[in-house]
Amino acid sequence: MARIGIIGCEGAMGHALAAVIGASGHELAGGIDKGGDAAGLADASEVLVDFSTPGALCINLHAAIGAGVPLVIGTTGLEERHHAAIDDAARAVPVLQTGNTSLGVTLLAHLVREAAARLGPDWDIEILEMHHRRKVDAPSGTALLLGEAAAGARGIDLASHSERGRDGHTGAREEGAIGFASLRGGTVAGEHSAILAGEEERITLSHSAENRSIFARGAVRAAEWMIGRDPGRYSMDQVLGI
Amino acid sequence: MARIGIIGCEGAMGHALAAVIGASGHELAGGIDKGGDAAGLADASEVLVDFSTPGALCINLHAAIGAGVPLVIGTTGLEERHHAAIDDAARAVPVLQTGNTSLGVTLLAHLVREAAARLGPDWDIEILEMHHRRKVDAPSGTALLLGEAAAGARGIDLASHSERGRDGHTGAREEGAIGFASLRGGTVAGEHSAILAGEEERITLSHSAENRSIFARGAVRAAEWMIGRDPGRYSMDQVLGI
Amino acid sequence: MARIGIIGCEGAMGHALAAVIGASGHELAGGIDKGGDAAGLADASEVLVDFSTPGALCINLHAAIGAGVPLVIGTTGLEERHHAAIDDAARAVPVLQTGNTSLGVTLLAHLVREAAARLGPDWDIEILEMHHRRKVDAPSGTALLLGEAAAGARGIDLASHSERGRDGHTGAREEGAIGFASLRGGTVAGEHSAILAGEEERITLSHSAENRSIFARGAVRAAEWMIGRDPGRYSMDQVLGI
Amino acid sequence: MARIGIIGCEGAMGHALAAVIGASGHELAGGIDKGGDAAGLADASEVLVDFSTPGALCINLHAAIGAGVPLVIGTTGLEERHHAAIDDAARAVPVLQTGNTSLGVTLLAHLVREAAARLGPDWDIEILEMHHRRKVDAPSGTALLLGEAAAGARGIDLASHSERGRDGHTGAREEGAIGFASLRGGTVAGEHSAILAGEEERITLSHSAENRSIFARGAVRAAEWMIGRDPGRYSMDQVLGI
Repeated sequence: MARIGIIGCEGAMGHALAAVIGASGHELAGGIDKGGDAAGLADASEVLVDFSTPGALCINLHAAIGAGVPLVIGTTGLEERHHAAIDDAARAVPVLQTGNTSLGVTLLAHLVREAAARLGPDWDIEILEMHHRRKVDAPSGTALLLGEAAAGARGIDLASHSERGRDGHTGAREEGAIGFASLRGGTVAGEHSAILAGEEERITLSHSAENRSIFARGAVRAAEWMIGRDPGRYSMDQVLGI
Repeated sequence: MARIGIIGCEGAMGHALAAVIGASGHELAGGIDKGGDAAGLADASEVLVDFSTPGALCINLHAAIGAGVPLVIGTTGLEERHHAAIDDAARAVPVLQTGNTSLGVTLLAHLVREAAARLGPDWDIEILEMHHRRKVDAPSGTALLLGEAAAGARGIDLASHSERGRDGHTGAREEGAIGFASLRGGTVAGEHSAILAGEEERITLSHSAENRSIFARGAVRAAEWMIGRDPGRYSMDQVLGI
Repeated sequence: MARIGIIGCEGAMGHALAAVIGASGHELAGGIDKGGDAAGLADASEVLVDFSTPGALCINLHAAIGAGVPLVIGTTGLEERHHAAIDDAARAVPVLQTGNTSLGVTLLAHLVREAAARLGPDWDIEILEMHHRRKVDAPSGTALLLGEAAAGARGIDLASHSERGRDGHTGAREEGAIGFASLRGGTVAGEHSAILAGEEERITLSHSAENRSIFARGAVRAAEWMIGRDPGRYSMDQVLGI
Repeated sequence: MARIGIIGCEGAMGHALAAVIGASGHELAGGIDKGGDAAGLADASEVLVDFSTPGALCINLHAAIGAGVPLVIGTTGLEERHHAAIDDAARAVPVLQTGNTSLGVTLLAHLVREAAARLGPDWDIEILEMHHRRKVDAPSGTALLLGEAAAGARGIDLASHSERGRDGHTGAREEGAIGFASLRGGTVAGEHSAILAGEEERITLSHSAENRSIFARGAVRAAEWMIGRDPGRYSMDQVLGI
């Protein structure tokens, strides 16, 4: 059982985190939002989970360092200078920063790397995703993350090997390309597939989320795992032992 | 058992037709290709199947009329004037012309019409297809045929309600839109899905082809069905009793 | 906007109904549970939705008749005598009784009937379902409902044509059989597929529920549709215009 | 380019191997079947591929040793004493013996091991397969191979943790169980999925074969890879670098 403090407790992820902490037998040490007392929260917590804003990052890092507690950061929109600040903080306390706290997506990216590396370039890679009707961009961030995993495993640059938004006379598929396709509709929380299509056989690796609480559940799992670690910068892969 | 004559016997579909006729217990009455004796073939056949070229259509229609035998036409690239000639011929003999002779795809289009008509516009419709890496256009003709089926059932115009090639900042999905997405890879013969996504539930209607001989099989089934019909113009729907 | 009364308001479906009524712009006329005043609720409602118990059915039917309001019955475990009582009541007021209030499942059963009827017995039919790890029986009731739809369309008896629980040396598939397979795991709310597998092509018709509120949503849609109908016994098919 | 000799050249796999060797730019050194001259074939080959019978194994091993050429063995039905003979031969020449020569299935088994090992026992594992209507046993050998991969990764015994042929009142799913379900129909060459279902998320890892020539293709790839290896016993995993 861990005492977990939430930074950004009034956002959607903050509420989801509180629900998961309550259901999982951990203790909610407290929560703050804009302008709250991060240092006080850190002192009361064994580990902090931060889903707030880039602007609050420095205060949160200082609070973690001051109290000597690990910090899991799921805040999005971080820039170079934020990553530099995280690197600095990671010399004093354990910090795990990630754009995706789902255990399933983290594992899927690992499996895509494995598959792309083992199967030669004669296996074509396609990334398919479906999300609810209100999503305003395509492909999803997770689809791009899976594309990066595949490109990295093949030693190629994703941007110059992507086929996106196929429509009209496309010509034959480029050898070595990574294709993306996006479906939108209903209330789908998020589905992603990586398809590796070879000569007369195909491998499909998929993840399906029933709702967005999986991100809270993965963040809490990461928080548990962080307690007692040495200072340093950690990743979700390590939580899964990858 | 029927005596079936093939027009366009040296093309890929001609060979596939001959194989299916042989395997299905029918009799191959003969086959002709460019410049062959259509009238002679018609005299020797109970039904003709034509997968040749638009340029040969008139000769083939005359041969069918002369012998009084039904004609199944799977030739692609037909224009207005070809359809007019077919309408004329259909006053004398039964003629079935179609852009897709697969029984499965014909049924799928019917099911998509049913689903789109029964479920209100709050169910979003998406069409997904996957084909082999050498296909040069997107979406596939069959995907568009499914989109037309959905649009027709909803009484909307497909062209002005399509969302194709989603990429980048797309904005939220338009209400009433029909989305298309295309995957390419490996040697996939052809897979199509129509997805109807509502509030917290989803219906998916899919067809998967193992190879292209299904088009020959459906054409032979249509040919059987045409024997003994009254003159007139028929469709694949009628072969399935739709 | 309709004033909807809930019978069985303290059960899981009762709570789900109240949430859907609130979100959909209708008015919750009130709710009763064991021993509540059904007649009073009926007087205050334009339509009643009953997800209570077979034992309460007669009182509920009388209340609906007394107030002259339509009744949607989703109660499970009904026996012959309950159905007879419903038939009697349907001479006075409109009554819709169903074992499955999901619009998507209702439509899927219709599509399965269509597909099974159009495609000959050389297309093998399989029903696949997946549910959460706590489900204690297999196949699911909805899977059997889909099997009945297929069997009915083919004019065969389901019980004597089922292949269930394949394991070990099964022998080749019986011609005309309807196969069932069940997956269990995680928190899956409910997924069903009917697969029609022919020579080198396959049609798959699937429904996926994100959670169980779809049953409440369909019941509310049925309730709206019932207002103003003539007395009689109705089905979910009619709500969808099937 | 390699000179490849086929043992068992008149069986279905023998024909498929000859077709793949021809199409892939390798040279067919020759083929033998029952009673053929294995030693002569070995002398003319750079590598041998054996899809014959257990009874011919010893002669084939001796021929490989005599000529000093590697041997890929896909023969099924091997017993303890055959494996002992293979171990002996592997001291003199490279030998790769496997029950499944598909690259895709080999990779899928690896991915299932990875997923089962990284995700805890609160992720339920199910194996689903579909094959053509003439298959007489269930689950398929490949499904069991995937189940073994999952069980091995979790350190449990498959036989005592399997849930097969669910039907009727099954009770809730056992924690730690590995479930199997089998679909049969049409002409499906072979589809396998491993599903890992956790709290509100799911990972599905699938392989789909368009036809059985993938086994010949994988065997030829293994044969190429074996040329120039040191004596020893090898596996398909090593061909993929796993």
